[in-house]
Amino acid sequence: MSPHPAWLPPTALSALAGRRAHVVGQGACVDSVRGELTRAGAVLDPDAELVLTVTDVLPDQPEGYQLGRTAGVTTVAAGSPQGLMYGFFHVVRLGAAAFGGDRPTTTHAPVHRLRMLDHWDNVDVHPVMGQVERGYAGGSIFYADGKVRADLSRVADYARLLAASGINRVAINNVNVHPREARLLTEEIGEVARIAEAFRPWGIRVHLSVSFAAPMLLGGLPTSDPLDPAVRDWWARTTADVYAAIPDFGGYVVKADSEGQPGPFAYGRDHVDGANALAAALAPHGGTVHWRAFVYDHHQDWRDRSTDRARAAYDHFAPLDGRFADNVVVQVKHGPMDFQTREPVSPVLAAMPATRLAVELQVTQEYTGQQRHVCYLPPLWQEALHFAPWGAAGPTVSDVAAGRGPSAATHVAELGGGGLAAVSNVGDDEFWTGHPLAQANLYAVGRLGWAPDLDAHELLEEWISLTFAGPGGAVDPVVRRTLLDLMADSRLLYESYTAPLGVGFMVRPGHHYGPDVDGYEYTPWGTYHFADRDGVGVDRTRATGTGYTGQYPAPWREVYESLDTCPDELLLFFHHVPYTHRLHSGTTVIQHIYDSRADAVEQLERLVATWQDVRGRVPQPVFDRVAERLTEQRRSAIEWRDQVRSYFFRKSGIPDATGRPIH
Amino acid sequence: MSPHPAWLPPTALSALAGRRAHVVGQGACVDSVRGELTRAGAVLDPDAELVLTVTDVLPDQPEGYQLGRTAGVTTVAAGSPQGLMYGFFHVVRLGAAAFGGDRPTTTHAPVHRLRMLDHWDNVDVHPVMGQVERGYAGGSIFYADGKVRADLSRVADYARLLAASGINRVAINNVNVHPREARLLTEEIGEVARIAEAFRPWGIRVHLSVSFAAPMLLGGLPTSDPLDPAVRDWWARTTADVYAAIPDFGGYVVKADSEGQPGPFAYGRDHVDGANALAAALAPHGGTVHWRAFVYDHHQDWRDRSTDRARAAYDHFAPLDGRFADNVVVQVKHGPMDFQTREPVSPVLAAMPATRLAVELQVTQEYTGQQRHVCYLPPLWQEALHFAPWGAAGPTVSDVAAGRGPSAATHVAELGGGGLAAVSNVGDDEFWTGHPLAQANLYAVGRLGWAPDLDAHELLEEWISLTFAGPGGAVDPVVRRTLLDLMADSRLLYESYTAPLGVGFMVRPGHHYGPDVDGYEYTPWGTYHFADRDGVGVDRTRATGTGYTGQYPAPWREVYESLDTCPDELLLFFHHVPYTHRLHSGTTVIQHIYDSRADAVEQLERLVATWQDVRGRVPQPVFDRVAERLTEQRRSAIEWRDQVRSYFFRKSGIPDATGRPIH
Repeated sequence: MSPHPAWLPPTALSALAGRRAHVVGQGACVDSVRGELTRAGAVLDPDAELVLTVTDVLPDQPEGYQLGRTAGVTTVAAGSPQGLMYGFFHVVRLGAAAFGGDRPTTTHAPVHRLRMLDHWDNVDVHPVMGQVERGYAGGSIFYADGKVRADLSRVADYARLLAASGINRVAINNVNVHPREARLLTEEIGEVARIAEAFRPWGIRVHLSVSFAAPMLLGGLPTSDPLDPAVRDWWARTTADVYAAIPDFGGYVVKADSEGQPGPFAYGRDHVDGANALAAALAPHGGTVHWRAFVYDHHQDWRDRSTDRARAAYDHFAPLDGRFADNVVVQVKHGPMDFQTREPVSPVLAAMPATRLAVELQVTQEYTGQQRHVCYLPPLWQEALHFAPWGAAGPTVSDVAAGRGPSAATHVAELGGGGLAAVSNVGDDEFWTGHPLAQANLYAVGRLGWAPDLDAHELLEEWISLTFAGPGGAVDPVVRRTLLDLMADSRLLYESYTAPLGVGFMVRPGHHYGPDVDGYEYTPWGTYHFADRDGVGVDRTRATGTGYTGQYPAPWREVYESLDTCPDELLLFFHHVPYTHRLHSGTTVIQHIYDSRADAVEQLERLVATWQDVRGRVPQPVFDRVAERLTEQRRSAIEWRDQVRSYFFRKSGIPDATGRPIH
Repeated sequence: MSPHPAWLPPTALSALAGRRAHVVGQGACVDSVRGELTRAGAVLDPDAELVLTVTDVLPDQPEGYQLGRTAGVTTVAAGSPQGLMYGFFHVVRLGAAAFGGDRPTTTHAPVHRLRMLDHWDNVDVHPVMGQVERGYAGGSIFYADGKVRADLSRVADYARLLAASGINRVAINNVNVHPREARLLTEEIGEVARIAEAFRPWGIRVHLSVSFAAPMLLGGLPTSDPLDPAVRDWWARTTADVYAAIPDFGGYVVKADSEGQPGPFAYGRDHVDGANALAAALAPHGGTVHWRAFVYDHHQDWRDRSTDRARAAYDHFAPLDGRFADNVVVQVKHGPMDFQTREPVSPVLAAMPATRLAVELQVTQEYTGQQRHVCYLPPLWQEALHFAPWGAAGPTVSDVAAGRGPSAATHVAELGGGGLAAVSNVGDDEFWTGHPLAQANLYAVGRLGWAPDLDAHELLEEWISLTFAGPGGAVDPVVRRTLLDLMADSRLLYESYTAPLGVGFMVRPGHHYGPDVDGYEYTPWGTYHFADRDGVGVDRTRATGTGYTGQYPAPWREVYESLDTCPDELLLFFHHVPYTHRLHSGTTVIQHIYDSRADAVEQLERLVATWQDVRGRVPQPVFDRVAERLTEQRRSAIEWRDQVRSYFFRKSGIPDATGRPIH
C-alpha cells in the first residue's frame, strides 16, 4: 500500500495541470521541481506562464526567493536551487491564486537557517521503547530488520513532504544512542550515505546522533576524554571519513550526561569541553554540533524540596555562555521541564547571548496524547517562539534562536543563531503519523521554522487546503469547518482534561499515556505536584520556594513571582496554593479543576460527533482512522476527567459546586 | 562455576561418612540413594549400621516409610523406591542423631500426595517479563538460547534438592503460555522427555502448562471449543503422544480465561467443560489437570465499588462444585487476591467439597521483596494451611487440600484431594534463588507439602542445620543465631514497612517492586485501598460493602463482618475506617501506619548490622550476596517508610504523635 500523500496529494497541485512552465537552472533541487511540474501535468515550455529561475539574486539568502506575477507570467527567482524549490512550493500553496491577477514581487527567506527534524529512531527494536523512541506511528522509515532499509523510496517521499514544509536538516537516529545505532557513524556510514542521497534532491542535509562514548565503543580507545589527543584524533579521522562518504553531511547531535547517556563529566570536563571537541572535528568540513541542554539530575530525592529540575538546564548551561565554538548549537527544549502541555519558556533561552541556541520542539506527541488524541501544537509552539523574555516590546525567543537576541555575539548573529530543532512524529504507518490529523503538526513545524510569525490558525487552514484539496483544488467546506472545529483549539482542550494549571506530568510513568496523578510524585525524576489535603503546586518563587523565578530577566521574574500577576495557566507551576485560592478567572483552583475537566469531556463529545459530518467527504481510510482515534481519545479523556476529579476530591474533601458526580 | 549446594552441602551428609550402609531394592530412586551414600563416603556393605529396604510395607502409602533404630542398626523400610528415598533424606536430616541410641520405629507419609512446583519459565526471553515470569534469580535452568538446554545437569541437581525437600511434581513452563512455549506440548515433547529424565531418578514427575487454544495454535483446528469432537480428538491424540514419550508424565496446568489467556468462555462453555475436556484426554494415562481458579475481571472499572475482585474466584468456581472430573484439580491461590503479604484465606477453599482443591502458594517473592528482601514465608503459608474455615476445632485448609475436608466427596477423599502447588523461585543464578536466604522458602514449601504441621520456626532451624552445616555437621552458633534473627520474623517485618493492615498492593504497577501507594488505585485491576482525606480501606462487609464476608462459613463470616472482631492485621481488607479508628492494639490506624513503618526500618537497621557478625563464618560468596541484598532491602524499606508516611500525612493531615519526620 502506498503511504498517504499527506499535504501533497495530486489535487493540491492541480493548479499546475496543463500549464506551461519553464525552469532555468541546474542542480538536484531544480531537477526535483522539474519532476514535480511534470508529475502535476504541467508542460515544460520556454513560452511559459510560470518561470522559475536560478539567478544571481539574494546573495545573502541562499534559501530565499522572489515571487511575482506580471503580464500573465508568474516568476520565481532564486539564488540557489534550494531557493527555487522553496519558491516552487510557495506557488503550490498559492494554487490557482498564483495564476490570477498581477502580483507585486515579494522576497521570501527563512527566519531560521537551521530547520531540523530529530528522529528518535533505533535500528533495532528496543525491548521497551520500540523502534522509534516515543514514536506513535509504527516502525522506522529508515530502518527495518536490524539494518537500513534496502528500499528508501519512502524516505524520498518523506523528503519531498519536508521540503514543501521548509525543513532542511534531518537527524536520522535516536539521541539515546545504543551500541547498535552507534555503528552508523563508522562501519555503516555507507548506509547513511544512501539515506542522505534520498534527502539530497530536496535540499535536506543529514545529521547523526552520536554517542559521546564512541571513541571507546567504536574506536577501542581506553577513554572518551574530550581533551585527550587520541580521542580528538579519533573524532577528526572518523569525521573526515563521514564527509568522504557524505560531502554535505550536517553534523552531530549529542545528548551527553543526561538520563544516563555518557558525557564529559566522567573525565572532569564540562559541556564546553565535550561540545568543542566534536566541533573541532566537524569545523573543517562545515558541520555543526547540536549539543542538547536537556541535562538534569534524574536521581533526585523527592524528599528534597530544594532541588528543582526546572532550574537544571539554566544552572548547567548559562555559566558556559561564550565558551562554545562557533559551530556548536546548544539545543534547548522550549520549556524547562520536558514538553508538557503547558510550561513557561525555558530561561536558558534568555541567558546565553554569546551562544548559538536552537529551540527544541516536540512534534511527536509524547505528553500530548501520543497521536491518539487530536492535539494541534502550533499554538503551544508559538507561545514559546513569540515569548518576549525581556518584556512585550523586546525580542522574542524566535529572535534569539535566529541570532537576533539582545547582545548577541558576532558569530551568533552572523550564523543566524541555532534555529529550530523538532522531534519528528513520523513512522512507517500508512498515514505517516498514526493519527492522520497529526500530520498538521509535522507540516506546521517546518513552516514555523521558515516563518515563525505565521498565525497558527492560518497555518491550519493552509494545511487543510493542501491536504484535503478536492478535485480542482478546493476543499469541501464541511470538511474545512469540521477540521477547524476539531483541531484549532485542541491543545487547550487536551490541557483542560489533563494536568491542571501548568503543574504538569500526572501521566503514567514509563509510557506517559493516560492519567496517574501520583505516578511521578515520589520518584527520582524531579516532577512533582506536592498535592496534599490543603493545596497543590510547586513553589518556585524566590521568596519561599526554589528560586527558579530568579532565572528570568525582568519583567518575568516579577510577574511569575507574585500570585497577583502570575498567569492562571501557569499558577501551579510557580506556586503552591490552597485549593480555595481564587484564580484571576474568578473561580477557585479546586472548582477550576473540577469544571474544566468535566467541560472538556462535554466539548470533546460534541466534537467527536461532528466527525460523522465528513463521512464520505474525506477518503474512507482517513475517516476510519480518525474515528477510531477519536473513540480512544474520548475514552481516555473520560478517564483523565474521572481520575483527576476523584483524586482531588479525595484529597481536598471539597465537593464540586456544580454537583456533577465524583467517583 | 558450580551452583551453590543449597541444603545439601557435603557437610550436611557428613554423618554418613565412613558408615556401612546396605540398600535393598531396585529402581531409579533406589539407585539415587546408593549414589548419595557413595558420594557421602558411606561404604555399601550388607553388614551395615544403616539398612534401607524396599519391601511390602505401607501398601496404601506409596511414598511412605518406616524409620527406627535398634541394636545399633538404623533401618528404613518403604513400599516403594520413592519411599526409600524419602526415608533416606529423613536420615540425612537426623544427621548424627540417626546413629545414636535406639529409636522406636515410626511411620512417615506425606499429608499431600501432590506436592508440586510450578515454574513460570519461558523458553524465549519475554521482552517485559524476562525469561522467568516473576523470576528474581536469573534465567531458566531448563531453557537457554531459545531451546531446552543441551546440558541438563543443573536440572538433575535441582531434582535432588527438591527430592530432599519432598517435592514430587514439577510443571516446567509458564502458565501464561506464549506461542513459542506452546510447542513444548507437541513437536518438542522429546525435549520435555529429556527434562523428565533428569527428574525421574528423584521421584519427580513432570507437568506442562498448556494453552487452552492449543488445538488452534498447534493443531490448526478452527476452534478450541472443548465440546467439539475434533478438539477432543486432538487433545486425545496429542496426549497419547505425550505419554508415548514420557510414560510417567504428570499432566497439564491450565490458566484459562484469566488475564487474557484463552479459555472455554469464548465458546459459551464454562470451566468444567474446559477442564473436563483435557481431563478426558489425560485419564487413560493417569494424568491430572491442574485448572487454576485465578479468574477475575482484569478490566474492572475502578469507579464501580460494587465489583470486588476478592469475590471473583468464589463467584466463578463455587457454583461448579461437583461437576469436575476426578482427575481435575482446581488450583486455588491461598488468598482471594494475589499473593499479598497479608490476605485472608480464600473462601473457595471452604466451598467445594466435591472438588479436588490444591492450595497454590507463591515461593517466588513477587509481592514480598523479589528476593532482594529477606522474607521467610512459611509463617504466612501456615496461616493459610492451618486456617480453620469452620472454626477453631474444625478441619483446616490443609485438611481440605488433602481430601479430608467436611463432606468431601468420595473421589476427593480417595485421591487425597489436590495437595499443594507452589510457584518456584529458582533460576540459573549461582545461589538458585538470587537471595541465598530465599532458598529456605523453596526448601520449606516442599517440607510443608509433606508435613503441613511442621512448625515454621523449627523448619527454619532444620534448613539452617542442613545448609550451614560445618565440618562434622554442626552449625556455628553465631551463624544460627544471626540467621534466626534475620529470618524468623522477616515476613512480619516486611509487612510492617509495606502496605498496612491487610489492604495490599501499593506496589509499583508492572514490576511490583517498591512503593507506589496509588499505583493501582485507578486501574482496571481491582486492587484498591480507597484512601481519602478521612479514611482508608475496602468495605467488604455484607452490611454496607461488597458482601465478600458472606463467602465465608461461620464463624468467619461474622468475625470479619464486625469491626469489633475483625483482626487488626486484616482490618483494611474488610473495612473502610477513619484514620482515627482505634485498633484492638490500642493505637489509631494512622498512628499505626506511622509507627510500624518507622519502627520496621529501625529494626531492619539493627538486623542489617548483625549480618556483619557472620563474616568469615559463612562462605564469602554467600556473605557478600546477602550483604549486597541487605543494602538494597534497607534502601527500599526506607523508601517504603517515607512514601507511605508522606502519602498518609498528605491525605490525613494528622501529624505523627512521636514527632518523627515526615517529608
